[in-house]
Amino acid sequence: MINTSIITIGDELLIGQVIDTNSAWMAQQLNKAGIKVNRRIAVGDTADDILKALDEETLHADIVLITGGLGPTADDITKPLLCKYFNGKMIVNEAALANVKYLFEKVFKREITERNIKQAEVPDVCTVIQNKRGSAPGMWFEKAGKIFVSMPGVPHEMKGMMEDDVIPELRRRFDLPFIEHRTLMTFGIGESAIADMIQEYEESLPENIKLAYLPNYGMVRLRLTVSGSDKATLDKILDEKFSTLQQLVSANIVTNLDEKMEGVLGKLLVQKNKTMCTAESCTGGYIAHLITSIPGSSAFYDGSVVTYSYKAKEDLLQVNHETLVEKGAVSEDVVREMAKGALQHIGSDYAIAVSGIMGPGGGMPDKPVGTVWIAVGNKEKIVTQRLHFRFERQLNIQLTAVNALNMLRKFILDN
Amino acid sequence: MINTSIITIGDELLIGQVIDTNSAWMAQQLNKAGIKVNRRIAVGDTADDILKALDEETLHADIVLITGGLGPTADDITKPLLCKYFNGKMIVNEAALANVKYLFEKVFKREITERNIKQAEVPDVCTVIQNKRGSAPGMWFEKAGKIFVSMPGVPHEMKGMMEDDVIPELRRRFDLPFIEHRTLMTFGIGESAIADMIQEYEESLPENIKLAYLPNYGMVRLRLTVSGSDKATLDKILDEKFSTLQQLVSANIVTNLDEKMEGVLGKLLVQKNKTMCTAESCTGGYIAHLITSIPGSSAFYDGSVVTYSYKAKEDLLQVNHETLVEKGAVSEDVVREMAKGALQHIGSDYAIAVSGIMGPGGGMPDKPVGTVWIAVGNKEKIVTQRLHFRFERQLNIQLTAVNALNMLRKFILDN
Repeated sequence: MINTSIITIGDELLIGQVIDTNSAWMAQQLNKAGIKVNRRIAVGDTADDILKALDEETLHADIVLITGGLGPTADDITKPLLCKYFNGKMIVNEAALANVKYLFEKVFKREITERNIKQAEVPDVCTVIQNKRGSAPGMWFEKAGKIFVSMPGVPHEMKGMMEDDVIPELRRRFDLPFIEHRTLMTFGIGESAIADMIQEYEESLPENIKLAYLPNYGMVRLRLTVSGSDKATLDKILDEKFSTLQQLVSANIVTNLDEKMEGVLGKLLVQKNKTMCTAESCTGGYIAHLITSIPGSSAFYDGSVVTYSYKAKEDLLQVNHETLVEKGAVSEDVVREMAKGALQHIGSDYAIAVSGIMGPGGGMPDKPVGTVWIAVGNKEKIVTQRLHFRFERQLNIQLTAVNALNMLRKFILDN
Repeated sequence: MINTSIITIGDELLIGQVIDTNSAWMAQQLNKAGIKVNRRIAVGDTADDILKALDEETLHADIVLITGGLGPTADDITKPLLCKYFNGKMIVNEAALANVKYLFEKVFKREITERNIKQAEVPDVCTVIQNKRGSAPGMWFEKAGKIFVSMPGVPHEMKGMMEDDVIPELRRRFDLPFIEHRTLMTFGIGESAIADMIQEYEESLPENIKLAYLPNYGMVRLRLTVSGSDKATLDKILDEKFSTLQQLVSANIVTNLDEKMEGVLGKLLVQKNKTMCTAESCTGGYIAHLITSIPGSSAFYDGSVVTYSYKAKEDLLQVNHETLVEKGAVSEDVVREMAKGALQHIGSDYAIAVSGIMGPGGGMPDKPVGTVWIAVGNKEKIVTQRLHFRFERQLNIQLTAVNALNMLRKFILDN
């Protein structure tokens, strides 16, 4: 099995100013290609720390993928450091220079500076990976049978290089093993309750199949992974075991694919040739955002009314002023009227409406922070549910959204 | 200076199924307390890899913070492994047991299982950190002058322990140095152009002040960091240098605080005692989500109409059917009418309207993927702008949102 370490470089990672999303994406792509990631390391823009990380990861891995520190400014030291580490000297790469010039003249339409031109310089001991999306070229080094690839930290630049160049080249170099995952998603049951339900099954799994529990926002994903060389045999046993697993958790299963709740709901609507809309108070557009993040969601999603104020609830959704005053914005009657208003004014087949108190402020004795009312339904029938979350604002918003999406999914299946 | 390594444990991190947000948050909090994070390492749920990481990080750091692998299921092996590593034996912790029982009986209202009870077992060689938000206790170990703290991977449980117990205890143990950051945000100017503008300034900075460039979605953050022991002197020099930096980039500065674009806009509205609303097509509720993620945003934000379909644009915003048919949904006239409709129906002082083609599909010869029209204004005046982004769907959505927010910010300042 080919082992990989990912090194991400940048002070911003060590003071928490940015969240590293690159490593997760890289790990996903490498796994699909049958390359295992053993370790991910983040270090700052400090020569000693970068050199130590290179030395150490060489011991752990066959392939070391490096991102970050290739920008044009003084805090970006990765390139000269790698040049020294691999005993090279800096030279201008003509193709990279042409690319930088093209980007500044034709795409950015900004004057090119000395700093940008310097980005076309690379160590003479590397194979250059041209950057089609930005000005910093990637660099492929080899030393003592190990491969080192340095890429920019800008996510879409790194992703382009990985897809166009790095993974295809790794596939050519190595006889990669077969790795396959099967993932299902449950809702409304805890990790330990599932573990109890499937304990015997789990203990009976063969050595080369691994089961993982991935809890997230009220959902628990169960993932089976197999690796080896005989694709046909492994596929067959994985499918069998996955089929048994689905039966064991059938009461709580949402999907037997590695997809999101909003994706499951979207597919269901498309299959039934129906549309939906949302009326959001406390989630403030987050449900709409989840749905519209799916390419092609316009096929089943008409839109949302985000009504933060009483006035917006009354004007846009025709919620009765009296209901708001008597019952309060966070009440069963209000979400019911919001859902009705959305169905009527947006004209979809189904609607979701939510209203709640997400915190940190706004709690009341009878409606503490975390109280949420959800309504889902169609023109014939609307069902409601009161939930209570105990977390901080963002998590309360996310939990409300996923619960509401699941409620509509179940409503459609049941009605 | 006290050095820290963060080890995150979990196979899900190495196959990219989850993005590690814990490390960034931990690093932020530690930095504020004057504790430096030197390295972050992610390893899988594999005994050898975890043990190797513990050994190695002991060499790099004074404090090793560990998250993950404490769940109740068979893939969670961190606790028994730490027990062995520190030569302990497992015993029941009575307070942890009482907590687990309380959670299942009173909060989750689910039957408690043997697995949950086992979560109250801890190595006898650790100091237990009680978990007020979940069932897995934290563990504080010491060995050869080094501190090791193991916490659950569930973000809000880890955050609670860090805030309530770990950071206060570290403050008591160490005479921590003073670390201070000053961050400003620019918009509409590239990293290298800024670097050229402030080259002399950057070269003149004293040894103990570091400047970092953090580009993100069209914004570039500039961060000055100072560390040392004499707070009064360091504060003074940092303030002076930060003041000069602000003057140098004054044409492009959005804020001289480490805050988000939506936060800057919100404060401006509150200060002027005005409200705003949004009419979103292509961003699908993302602008509303950004704004409503700010606690207290109801003070300046009335709501949004997310109109994905022609019908929703006509019904909810009174966009003319003829305009849609003649000019297309992605056009100056349509965003202008959307903004007018939102101002009229939601009744806010200011509105943002956006319509565009975010990809991957939907492009046309005269309106390729990435084309966006934005309108911002009030009842007296509406201004529009056409932009073109060259990225994938999510990034195009994010860039549209931040550009629209900045356009309204500038409109308010100018009008």
